[in-house]
Amino acid sequence: MKLNQCSLEQIPLRGAKGVKRLFEERLKEFEPIFYPKSIAVVGVSANEAKPGSQWVKALISAGFAGHIYPIGSGGGIISGLKIFPNLRLVPGEVDYVIVSIPRQSVLKLLDDCAAKKVKTIHFFTAGFSETGKPEWCGLEDQMVRKARQNGIRIIGPNCLGVCCPESRIPFGMTPLGKIGIGGSVGFISQSGGIADRLIEIGVIRHINYSEGVSFGNGIDLDASDFFQYLAADPKTTVIGAYLEGTRRGHRLFDTMKEVVKAKPLVVWKGGRTEAGAQAAISHTGSLTSSTAVWSAMLKQAGAIEVHSLEELTDTLLIFQQLGHWKGNNIAVIGGLGGGGGGISVSASDACIESGLELPSLSSKTKEELVSLLGEVGSILHNPIDVSQAQLRGGSTLFQAIKLVVNDPAVELLLIQEDMGILLSFLSWGRVERINDFFIDLRRRQNKPLIVVLPSGSAEPERLDIEQRLLRASIPVFPTMERAANAIVAINKYFSSRLTSPNNNLSLG
Amino acid sequence: MKLNQCSLEQIPLRGAKGVKRLFEERLKEFEPIFYPKSIAVVGVSANEAKPGSQWVKALISAGFAGHIYPIGSGGGIISGLKIFPNLRLVPGEVDYVIVSIPRQSVLKLLDDCAAKKVKTIHFFTAGFSETGKPEWCGLEDQMVRKARQNGIRIIGPNCLGVCCPESRIPFGMTPLGKIGIGGSVGFISQSGGIADRLIEIGVIRHINYSEGVSFGNGIDLDASDFFQYLAADPKTTVIGAYLEGTRRGHRLFDTMKEVVKAKPLVVWKGGRTEAGAQAAISHTGSLTSSTAVWSAMLKQAGAIEVHSLEELTDTLLIFQQLGHWKGNNIAVIGGLGGGGGGISVSASDACIESGLELPSLSSKTKEELVSLLGEVGSILHNPIDVSQAQLRGGSTLFQAIKLVVNDPAVELLLIQEDMGILLSFLSWGRVERINDFFIDLRRRQNKPLIVVLPSGSAEPERLDIEQRLLRASIPVFPTMERAANAIVAINKYFSSRLTSPNNNLSLG
Repeated sequence: MKLNQCSLEQIPLRGAKGVKRLFEERLKEFEPIFYPKSIAVVGVSANEAKPGSQWVKALISAGFAGHIYPIGSGGGIISGLKIFPNLRLVPGEVDYVIVSIPRQSVLKLLDDCAAKKVKTIHFFTAGFSETGKPEWCGLEDQMVRKARQNGIRIIGPNCLGVCCPESRIPFGMTPLGKIGIGGSVGFISQSGGIADRLIEIGVIRHINYSEGVSFGNGIDLDASDFFQYLAADPKTTVIGAYLEGTRRGHRLFDTMKEVVKAKPLVVWKGGRTEAGAQAAISHTGSLTSSTAVWSAMLKQAGAIEVHSLEELTDTLLIFQQLGHWKGNNIAVIGGLGGGGGGISVSASDACIESGLELPSLSSKTKEELVSLLGEVGSILHNPIDVSQAQLRGGSTLFQAIKLVVNDPAVELLLIQEDMGILLSFLSWGRVERINDFFIDLRRRQNKPLIVVLPSGSAEPERLDIEQRLLRASIPVFPTMERAANAIVAINKYFSSRLTSPNNNLSLG
Repeated sequence: MKLNQCSLEQIPLRGAKGVKRLFEERLKEFEPIFYPKSIAVVGVSANEAKPGSQWVKALISAGFAGHIYPIGSGGGIISGLKIFPNLRLVPGEVDYVIVSIPRQSVLKLLDDCAAKKVKTIHFFTAGFSETGKPEWCGLEDQMVRKARQNGIRIIGPNCLGVCCPESRIPFGMTPLGKIGIGGSVGFISQSGGIADRLIEIGVIRHINYSEGVSFGNGIDLDASDFFQYLAADPKTTVIGAYLEGTRRGHRLFDTMKEVVKAKPLVVWKGGRTEAGAQAAISHTGSLTSSTAVWSAMLKQAGAIEVHSLEELTDTLLIFQQLGHWKGNNIAVIGGLGGGGGGISVSASDACIESGLELPSLSSKTKEELVSLLGEVGSILHNPIDVSQAQLRGGSTLFQAIKLVVNDPAVELLLIQEDMGILLSFLSWGRVERINDFFIDLRRRQNKPLIVVLPSGSAEPERLDIEQRLLRASIPVFPTMERAANAIVAINKYFSSRLTSPNNNLSLG
């Protein structure tokens, strides 16, 4: 019960050793949540359209390897599994319970869970404090009280619960067919819809998750608890979060401050405006506070604040792909769209306005570029512009790019490819060879490559190249602005880490 | 010669009548540029890989209906057309000359054009002031002098010239296979690469251009001249521009001030940062000045300043599609991703932070929504959240959306659809029916609908729906933030127009 109490009260975290112990205890405590040996789904019937039934099917189709126990008063069979009329009748131990029953029955279910010594219940069931009605807010209090009396932790209500690619737990009852492969990005979302999108985008952009959770109203376990777990989890190297509000702000602040010492924490705060906050109250019943307070808190805690799903996934992608890289000096090839001087100009603007530097190339590199590319129609310094003729040619382009990467002033190479434009004068084979060269170049040296692939008139080809680059650990962004912002985020985090070594908390 | 002199010197535009006359004279003067009866291409050979030869082929394949005269000292045949060894030997009149020959020969060519009484020469040829070398800057001066002596206008050098879907003049020598259909959006770009992208995106997003031009170094005709033409052109209802700099800032400012009285002018200034400006000098030899000066100038002129290709095309799209609409009161359906309360919350944030309002729905609408959608798991006010069950259902969703659109407080309906999520629980047929309903709804009443379709795991289906919506005059944006910014831009322009009626300049 010690941990439960700690997570429920606002005890300031004291001392690096105490924090480390707390986080590691959380890691152990939540092991059965993300890696359960058995899951019971309550609210299942032989009718496959019911949410509970769909949840069972989702677990099976995702390949969950542990025991699955469907529970439903009507009994019967679903997907070859026996439906138990009551949780108490399940023969084995139950680590995790997913609940999809009417809200009127939740207290009785908690009794069943107590009898069965269940450790964690996830309530998909909704209609509590998010309605704003006193009776349903009151029911939440009773649920928490009953759970505490029996050593049960609650995820939710009004949420889709956990997701864990490694243990093949899909997110929600309507999986997208894919849950992705296990990776190093942990996430927390107060919204099931946003978590759904995170997983969808993750599969496409090769953002591979370690563990994720959507905790809805968060009446017991909330952001702080899961942050502590993910901070201690050795698989997780970066944590992303969508938060709408919290009932325990000080605890969240103290936790985030400690988490950031261990790994980068990227937070998107929803409900920043009055209308958004109003919607958030209806959505998860959260108390939100002003944008300024949240922004100040996130900044002081050392978290990276983002403002949209795009910015969140961009930032997670770059942290995942670039590891502990930091740097500010970028070489830009903006004109790989074919003589696009304007693309170079605007690419430079995007980088510099984000706070990056485009260093001059060394005289040696410049001279070699001039002799390689000639003078007319090309920009011979950083940003580097490559003409259509040069793109069509044999290995000239590759030599030029190698020269740029090898320049000591350059820490990262940022390339824009406009697929529709490229394919208007290059064969698909040539475009493939150019990108094979990037992939090979990435493997042969340590400076990261980032590619910007804007959408256009050749979407199937663009998506194909995007997948090849992502598989080769080359992050891909749809605009120069988004790429530049992500580079700034990772540079800022690791630069500040390195200048304050005492802030580093070694975990795991 | 009167107009030429006027355009070359910095004569302030005086009085609405004078301005109107000047603009209309420009319309007449440039008729042979955008609607030429004959085009000569200089620098053609039987070798089809040469730029000049490709230009001839591009004109033919785009369907240019006037005479095409290939010129090249070697003579021969290209695509069935005789190559004249010299421009002077062309039998008929020549309205427009496209030049792709070495820079060393341009003065001699100007003599040929003078002899042939050519009105406009477009120099694709590059390697002039953008090299920064005095000898080539000096050559530009000589070109201008010779052109003026002979009543010839120059477009360029170092540029791709004009594009006009109606007269089937494609942009550049490597057309994307499409030049789109004639429409109401005029554009000016100091970069060929950016103009290429504008056309590519235009075809995809149904931004249909009236006329467009890329004028490179702009040694004679520049932004001001083309702005005057597009302001007077009755087909053009909105003008977009990518500018890197100007040698005649006062004239540009005076012109833009007058243009904005006639129609919205959306300007993306490239080379805002030092690195960008440095790149711009190498690119088009333009003198750029500080961001602050440009921003202040654009603001004072009443132009809409944008900062990226995405913002430029978003803004052009909304002006094209929404006509003279203005409004600030938006109803948001953020949760059409299936129970995505978090999507509603973040959609609200995006709208409000952009400066839009999400008005409360009337009590009548609210009551009707409650009885229709129920209470649990739904957000019953603006933003409106629709659950998965409601999306699956028959016409409930449609009734709800109609209720919202008909609410007197609502001026525009903004809907987010996450295709990957939708298709994880809806059939393709149902998704089609939902979008058919939007299209039908748009036709049956006057309030605009805007749809946000983020990319995700169902790209072919998303692109399909995007095309259907765009064809039905429903603007589509990839993120809520971008949609909100575009709505703010159109609202701001027409609100300021209506409050200062004396500013309206009636043209055409």
